[in-house]
Amino acid sequence: MPELQPLKWENNRLILLDQTRLPGRECYLKISDYKDLVAAIKRLAVRGAPAIGIAAAYGTALGALETETDSLRLFKNRLNKVIGTLWRSRPTARNLFWALERQQKIIARGEGISRIREDLIREAVKIHQEQILSDEQISRFGAALLNDGGTILTHCNAGALATGGCGTALGIIKKAFEDGHPIHVMATETRPLLQGARLTAFELKRAGIPFTLITDSMAGTFMRQAKIQAVITGADRIARNGDTANKIGTYTLAVLAKEHGIPFYIAAPTSTLDLSIYSGKEIIIEERSAEEVTSFQGVKSAPKGIKAANPSFDITPHEYITAIVTEKGIVRGQYHTELARQVE
Amino acid sequence: MPELQPLKWENNRLILLDQTRLPGRECYLKISDYKDLVAAIKRLAVRGAPAIGIAAAYGTALGALETETDSLRLFKNRLNKVIGTLWRSRPTARNLFWALERQQKIIARGEGISRIREDLIREAVKIHQEQILSDEQISRFGAALLNDGGTILTHCNAGALATGGCGTALGIIKKAFEDGHPIHVMATETRPLLQGARLTAFELKRAGIPFTLITDSMAGTFMRQAKIQAVITGADRIARNGDTANKIGTYTLAVLAKEHGIPFYIAAPTSTLDLSIYSGKEIIIEERSAEEVTSFQGVKSAPKGIKAANPSFDITPHEYITAIVTEKGIVRGQYHTELARQVE
Repeated sequence: MPELQPLKWENNRLILLDQTRLPGRECYLKISDYKDLVAAIKRLAVRGAPAIGIAAAYGTALGALETETDSLRLFKNRLNKVIGTLWRSRPTARNLFWALERQQKIIARGEGISRIREDLIREAVKIHQEQILSDEQISRFGAALLNDGGTILTHCNAGALATGGCGTALGIIKKAFEDGHPIHVMATETRPLLQGARLTAFELKRAGIPFTLITDSMAGTFMRQAKIQAVITGADRIARNGDTANKIGTYTLAVLAKEHGIPFYIAAPTSTLDLSIYSGKEIIIEERSAEEVTSFQGVKSAPKGIKAANPSFDITPHEYITAIVTEKGIVRGQYHTELARQVE
Repeated sequence: MPELQPLKWENNRLILLDQTRLPGRECYLKISDYKDLVAAIKRLAVRGAPAIGIAAAYGTALGALETETDSLRLFKNRLNKVIGTLWRSRPTARNLFWALERQQKIIARGEGISRIREDLIREAVKIHQEQILSDEQISRFGAALLNDGGTILTHCNAGALATGGCGTALGIIKKAFEDGHPIHVMATETRPLLQGARLTAFELKRAGIPFTLITDSMAGTFMRQAKIQAVITGADRIARNGDTANKIGTYTLAVLAKEHGIPFYIAAPTSTLDLSIYSGKEIIIEERSAEEVTSFQGVKSAPKGIKAANPSFDITPHEYITAIVTEKGIVRGQYHTELARQVE
């Protein structure tokens, strides 16, 4: 079965699979206004750090196509505003800023309007293509970690829907399964927005990989019963020392994995690395609306007018991470030197 | 504000607050047929180990009132069937069996039909009254553990709704708050059935105690940020060695508490103790319908036809438990000798 295509560039428009409607409906948004893309990113119609990066790169191209002026200066000013708006759409995923920085360079050095437009489109397509290749590499490297098969726990969604390629954590799982290793997956539902139940379950079912959906709270008891052999998740940002921001709940899984002697792996492209910060303490964690916690898909689950916390991510300190898999290979410990070496 | 009354005996009927409708609606079921009570227990209209015990005691009385015969032998046979049906309604909560064992003794030694009927009602009311007193004692003993105030994490619902009194874990929290300690509560929503979001939030709001609702997956990150000073939950069954069955997710919280050096307390009446078993390994864990996990308040959250696990409880080994609070006092470690001593 072909990979899901959460993003597609077609006739100067971005075709976006609306992930908020999955698994019930496969709806595609045709986006030609970059502001619609910003709204789509904010409401998580597209999500997953690598996919957000790709979307933002295309968004810059949309901004360039929309901007009608003959003045290069006005054109560049306007594009820098477009980038600023995309930049502020979500605060945690590193890939968003990484992709926008690439587009910024093209704008800065560009000398003609139509050429900049073409180059921004070309760069966005390139970022997308690179991610597809990167996912394949990550999957190949990571699959070696799962040679023994067993039940692999994953959290949130780090599959095709999150990257535009074959996925990171889920790419590894798929590759190990295709290689014939006896893989079973436990997928956490991932409250509040249920990316595990809605998206990972959707992808695993589609790929024919046997899996069991669990609530986030069940991971501990299944580890204690020795029913989980490894944990693998994606990442939204990785600091120089290996501290990793990922979907809320990841840190809890890492603590549980340590307590039960189970390896805990992170899989992400090097575009998720943020070498400008030393540790996870410097990562801004997005706080989303309390409503996501007090309800699901519009159905209220708590009394009205109460306070709820909703940090969208947490930080897993590097000492809990057995290995980080990127498209360049596997890093085991010594993150503060070895991660930087991957991108040098 | 008076305590919530999840159960009330009135004119030979059991008035049951339908907890599946909370917090949206306060509906009361008027039950005169014990089979309706069995159905209500199974679908969690009444839940919480102590409340289930009380309900089952009243259920036996309902069975006696329904049974019309002049033969003491037939009457007793029929009542033993009633008890058998109630016995099989849920497998984990110790209090259910404890209450039914008390009613069994009354039936066994009873010598006249109408006298047995009266005695079963009287015993059910007594079990209910004892629980109210027991909750008060637990709250008094336990509040001393929270003298320093701070943010207390609780899981599921161990309040008035779970016990028919003022609650166990939540009773302690309420008492500490009433005593003027600066208490803030973090309440986990408790997937899949959201007893935290629906019931604990409802009780805390009603009591005017400041609290924050969180998803189950957030506990780890808040502990790491030193935002939680203690964890306290109820229990469904406690083995002789202190191993404790409680709502799924409790074990994960205990592991997290240990990792962060936070005290982890269990609060339960001695009727939750099961001295017939040595350890948690012997506790049967109820597996409920996968549908509870693949949906959220009736809204489908996962693809159709997938597999989901739904163990309703987990076991927290005694070594993770800082103290167990019963109506007899606080036990700190040495559970295998000290718990039995409480009921001798």
